[in-house]
Amino acid sequence: MKVAVDAMGGDNAPEAIVKGSILARDEYNLSVILSGKEKEVKQLLEKYTSSFNKIEIINAEEVITNDDKPVMAIRRKKDSSLVVACNAVKNKEADAVVSAGSTGALLSGGTLIVGRIEGIQRPAIGSLIPNMSGGFALLIDSGANVDSKPEFLYDFAMMGDIYLKKVMNVENPRIALANIGAEKSKGDKLTVETYELLENTKLPMNFIGNIEAREILQGKADIIVCDGFVGNMILKTLEGTVLELMKGLKNELMSSTRTKIGAALIKPALMNFKNKFDYSEHGGAPLLGVKAPVIKAHGSSDEKAIKNAIRQAKMCCESNVNELIEESITRR
Amino acid sequence: MKVAVDAMGGDNAPEAIVKGSILARDEYNLSVILSGKEKEVKQLLEKYTSSFNKIEIINAEEVITNDDKPVMAIRRKKDSSLVVACNAVKNKEADAVVSAGSTGALLSGGTLIVGRIEGIQRPAIGSLIPNMSGGFALLIDSGANVDSKPEFLYDFAMMGDIYLKKVMNVENPRIALANIGAEKSKGDKLTVETYELLENTKLPMNFIGNIEAREILQGKADIIVCDGFVGNMILKTLEGTVLELMKGLKNELMSSTRTKIGAALIKPALMNFKNKFDYSEHGGAPLLGVKAPVIKAHGSSDEKAIKNAIRQAKMCCESNVNELIEESITRR
Repeated sequence: MKVAVDAMGGDNAPEAIVKGSILARDEYNLSVILSGKEKEVKQLLEKYTSSFNKIEIINAEEVITNDDKPVMAIRRKKDSSLVVACNAVKNKEADAVVSAGSTGALLSGGTLIVGRIEGIQRPAIGSLIPNMSGGFALLIDSGANVDSKPEFLYDFAMMGDIYLKKVMNVENPRIALANIGAEKSKGDKLTVETYELLENTKLPMNFIGNIEAREILQGKADIIVCDGFVGNMILKTLEGTVLELMKGLKNELMSSTRTKIGAALIKPALMNFKNKFDYSEHGGAPLLGVKAPVIKAHGSSDEKAIKNAIRQAKMCCESNVNELIEESITRR
Repeated sequence: MKVAVDAMGGDNAPEAIVKGSILARDEYNLSVILSGKEKEVKQLLEKYTSSFNKIEIINAEEVITNDDKPVMAIRRKKDSSLVVACNAVKNKEADAVVSAGSTGALLSGGTLIVGRIEGIQRPAIGSLIPNMSGGFALLIDSGANVDSKPEFLYDFAMMGDIYLKKVMNVENPRIALANIGAEKSKGDKLTVETYELLENTKLPMNFIGNIEAREILQGKADIIVCDGFVGNMILKTLEGTVLELMKGLKNELMSSTRTKIGAALIKPALMNFKNKFDYSEHGGAPLLGVKAPVIKAHGSSDEKAIKNAIRQAKMCCESNVNELIEESITRR
């Protein structure tokens, strides 16, 4: 098994990417292709490992940044680390792609180069949201598509279901529709019509109805289905609130000698608390509905997060997620 | 000035409602009409005040609950505390309505009984979101409408602008559109078209472009405009995250003797931190676009929150928010 890794994508690239790739190779017995500026990547490899076994470099001189327009960047920057990594999958030199770079560019690369699975109109990004009880939920779509149709959301549910069962080993995942109320009749046109589709599915999906945004962190559902605009709002509101609260709490704790002593005493508890929201443990967010596993690692990924994202790519390959999605299309 | 207060709506009704009404009468020199079960309300008034000056009761034997279907409840429960309060405004016996009961029912009562302002297709709920720096933003629409059109969102911005300027005394409020990215071209069809409308407005509105959900608590905008489905997702995700984090933090702090001592030391700081998210300080959420001030107090309102919601109703009346909205329609 070979995973193509975009060595230049992400806030900590290329160092964290190269280190994470070495860790993944050593731990999971797989091969890694690093696409990026050869000289730079080679220097880092020499610095962090004594063996080049199962690690190769494909040179790519360009880098796609968050400022680039995704579709245009994929079309024009043919020699970028991301395009080169996606092409490696297209040309069967690699089995999967991992990138911590621009989400939009990876989405375009996944759709335009790796290619959509026939019958899937819109590939979607599934993001794992950790909750306070140590579990998580898959939010799909968390930002790939806007102006979705009911059939798209139905497919998001179907793809998320396969991913959770096969890759995350969740038995009979509870699928819920993000909505403004619990009743079937609640919500906008899209949600009401999607409810109807999910309720009447012929696939073995465990649809449990609507979930309100307030309940998302309570672990009531394993898969939360929504349009990408809505999913982005949920995910970013959640991330922003956690960040601002932690910052606000820190300020309060540093406000007097008394609170500083208190803060020192609760530090291990606070770290424990913070770790519950550590996204890097779960790897990255899969782009589901394309012909090979495409994993988006968080932009701020460190080596551990990259290692986990590569593990996730491996698990997607081994569990045949993409083949199972293709198969489900005929039965939906 | 007379404010009609739904004495039976909310988790702590009728006690907190009656107490809050007495406080408001005493502090703001206004008259209150309490609609609800006369005997019960009278007993509470006798318990908490020695003077019935400027407080009257209108008997209403029915109560609308969160389980009732809003529109149907408004039509059928003619003798409910909410319908009676709304009718008091319609019949010019009161100048404004306050309720801590079902949001949907108040929305229906406001729209069907108090009545839409001519030219406003969709009244909207504006919710104040406090941020860590002590400020707040008005999220409009936070849940009244789904499947909005660009013109609706434009009107939400216009109404929020007037409300913030006149009632909350914010000078030149910064209006932003909730979106998945900063660029004008980002987002779904609704958002892209609303951007165009807001950018070209003839009204003196300070439109600053898109805001991502991650930035909402950072105080970058004073008014956040969105469809009610999206607004509900933002508001409920935010509330849910704050609640779950506080619960999770509490659990961690109670986990050992060491952390318990630490917790005792930081308690004042924690309270201070918690107070920043105290919604009751700001009163309630106005339903904008109806012919008289209609204020939704939080379901869990205590007497202080009710008092503040009544103050807010008074301020809406005094600043002629509704007349100003009517006037703006002709110039938009």
